[in-house]
Amino acid sequence: MSFEIDDLPVRDELRGKSPYGAPQLDVPVRLNTNENPYPLPEPLVERIAERVREAARNLNRYPDRDAVELRTRLAEYLTDTSGHQVGLANVWAANGSNEVIQQLLQTFGGPGRTAIGFEPSYSMHGLIARGTGTGWISGPRNEDFTIDLAAAEKAIAEHRPDVVFVTTPNNPTGTAVPRETVLALYEAAQAAKAATAGAIVVVDEAYIEFSHGDSLLPLIEGRPQLVVSRTMSKAFGAAGLRLGYLAAHPAVVDAVQLVRLPYHLSSVTQATALAALEHTDTLLKYVRQLKDERDRLVAELLETGYEVTASDANFVQFGRFDDAHAMWQKILDRGVLVRDNGVPGWLRVTAGTPEENDAFLDAVRELKKESA
Amino acid sequence: MSFEIDDLPVRDELRGKSPYGAPQLDVPVRLNTNENPYPLPEPLVERIAERVREAARNLNRYPDRDAVELRTRLAEYLTDTSGHQVGLANVWAANGSNEVIQQLLQTFGGPGRTAIGFEPSYSMHGLIARGTGTGWISGPRNEDFTIDLAAAEKAIAEHRPDVVFVTTPNNPTGTAVPRETVLALYEAAQAAKAATAGAIVVVDEAYIEFSHGDSLLPLIEGRPQLVVSRTMSKAFGAAGLRLGYLAAHPAVVDAVQLVRLPYHLSSVTQATALAALEHTDTLLKYVRQLKDERDRLVAELLETGYEVTASDANFVQFGRFDDAHAMWQKILDRGVLVRDNGVPGWLRVTAGTPEENDAFLDAVRELKKESA
Repeated sequence: MSFEIDDLPVRDELRGKSPYGAPQLDVPVRLNTNENPYPLPEPLVERIAERVREAARNLNRYPDRDAVELRTRLAEYLTDTSGHQVGLANVWAANGSNEVIQQLLQTFGGPGRTAIGFEPSYSMHGLIARGTGTGWISGPRNEDFTIDLAAAEKAIAEHRPDVVFVTTPNNPTGTAVPRETVLALYEAAQAAKAATAGAIVVVDEAYIEFSHGDSLLPLIEGRPQLVVSRTMSKAFGAAGLRLGYLAAHPAVVDAVQLVRLPYHLSSVTQATALAALEHTDTLLKYVRQLKDERDRLVAELLETGYEVTASDANFVQFGRFDDAHAMWQKILDRGVLVRDNGVPGWLRVTAGTPEENDAFLDAVRELKKESA
Repeated sequence: MSFEIDDLPVRDELRGKSPYGAPQLDVPVRLNTNENPYPLPEPLVERIAERVREAARNLNRYPDRDAVELRTRLAEYLTDTSGHQVGLANVWAANGSNEVIQQLLQTFGGPGRTAIGFEPSYSMHGLIARGTGTGWISGPRNEDFTIDLAAAEKAIAEHRPDVVFVTTPNNPTGTAVPRETVLALYEAAQAAKAATAGAIVVVDEAYIEFSHGDSLLPLIEGRPQLVVSRTMSKAFGAAGLRLGYLAAHPAVVDAVQLVRLPYHLSSVTQATALAALEHTDTLLKYVRQLKDERDRLVAELLETGYEVTASDANFVQFGRFDDAHAMWQKILDRGVLVRDNGVPGWLRVTAGTPEENDAFLDAVRELKKESA
């Protein structure tokens, strides 16, 4: 007798679903998951080995449950790069920004509550909402993928969500959200929930280091319901590390500790992240190179005759295609893996090394000629 | 204006709660969190540094989302130590057994569903239930902390829980649960939920390597609703690593992937765990020493005139005290930190090194004399 998932008492809303994740294919040029293409410099690799060796000598003990040293260094990084002073009490860290978001939804969302995002956006927001029993509201965007503020304010007034996600730069479109829009959404969200201590607004800045503009981190001042989430996966070239963090009013940091699993952040994760933070200057040089390459991708895609969504991230949304998935397959057939995020007519390409981007551009130029 | 947690829109059931966790005090002898007192041997420390260095060279890429190599090695360890053949498809791993349990409750518990545990037991079961919106039922135990099977079956028939936790050896009491009891609870749980694909029974074997008896792992054969959870925190001396895992029918492993955060297990965690698994034989030698020390603690506590709960774990519950917390403080005043788990009349001491255990035994002998 074969026994499968559906024979188990899984929750109804999970039945028939598939696990999240891009196809992991063995292809010469992988530009599908917005990874940083530059391996960590060798001195940093050595420093990681050194700090982990030190941590391993104490591995029989639980890690620092509050990750004090790591949060202190993350606060220094945020202060240095944003010009806005934050400290240990403002910062919280977890296993990837996904876990940060999960903890926020367990604290401020959950059964009987709702969260809203403006889609297409980072699809994990909605999936983590489902995983935490939070109702999900799909808010609108304009045709050009900017947030339709009037429609967004209307949706917030109508649904009165407990949590509002604003992703800037947005994934998968690359679209930056202006400061004034975030402020207006924040005001709308507080007004809609004025009777019950307001709503939490999560500004997801996973890709902010690649932006033409500044971080919205200073907005946390005087706005205790505003949370900025970040990750070391992209700018720090450390997707394998799974280190996400947030900056907010200390009360938010206190609150997520009510749901965080104790000792959630391992000693080796803390040691590795601390090593990477010692090398911030070097890593941010790669960020500048990637921004240049991103701008080159935009320029050459436009020149080749594709449409492009204005991008502030380390990736570019390009189109349009009658059948985006067929185009995805044709690019893959040329040895380049890009991402089909299911946005009708569009695909997404990560900015890789100059050589990887050349391979991608060659492929799409060829395809443009063929279709001409 | 001071702004605090209660001014934020946190969920009602979290209001007024405190984060879980034992006090982290700076004391010469810490026997309060069931850590393994033996640091990893230096060759293993070097091997961890080596494997992490290798992983760090690829840290810009996401980790293996499915942790195939790690799960394969964990399956080999389970097969070798239990004599029951399991493979990759039977094993799942996460950041500590807490995350394993969280994923199980997100999949099989959650809003509108309930879980039961027989208390006093590992208090995180109930806390993670709360964090996932799962209703919590506190089942009974006998006066001697064994499971009262008749009462447990009655509670299961009455409440029809979706998830049943059986911790063996139990924490904080050290009590092993007989195979027949687990089988009877499994049957009762399936019978109570016969209309809806049964109930999931989680056998939490975090401390099984310290037991006088065998693992119940072979019970997963032919019982797709039975899950055995494990950790590398205790027997592997790697509490700082945060590596928990489970063994079950492959359908369970498929099911938890519907709720796991993608790439939840970092490359450095996977590399460190793989290094530790290469040194299993050495680490299990420490386990044998700790079992001997545990037995010595039991014998000497009894000899000194304390009551002791029969223990199959790396810790011992001892009593009884009119005021357990006052006794906890007196032991602490003598430089030894034990655990007050809130079980009226009892305290818990972790088996440490012979020297640490001597310090503890000296302290409680002195206190016995003083009270005589």
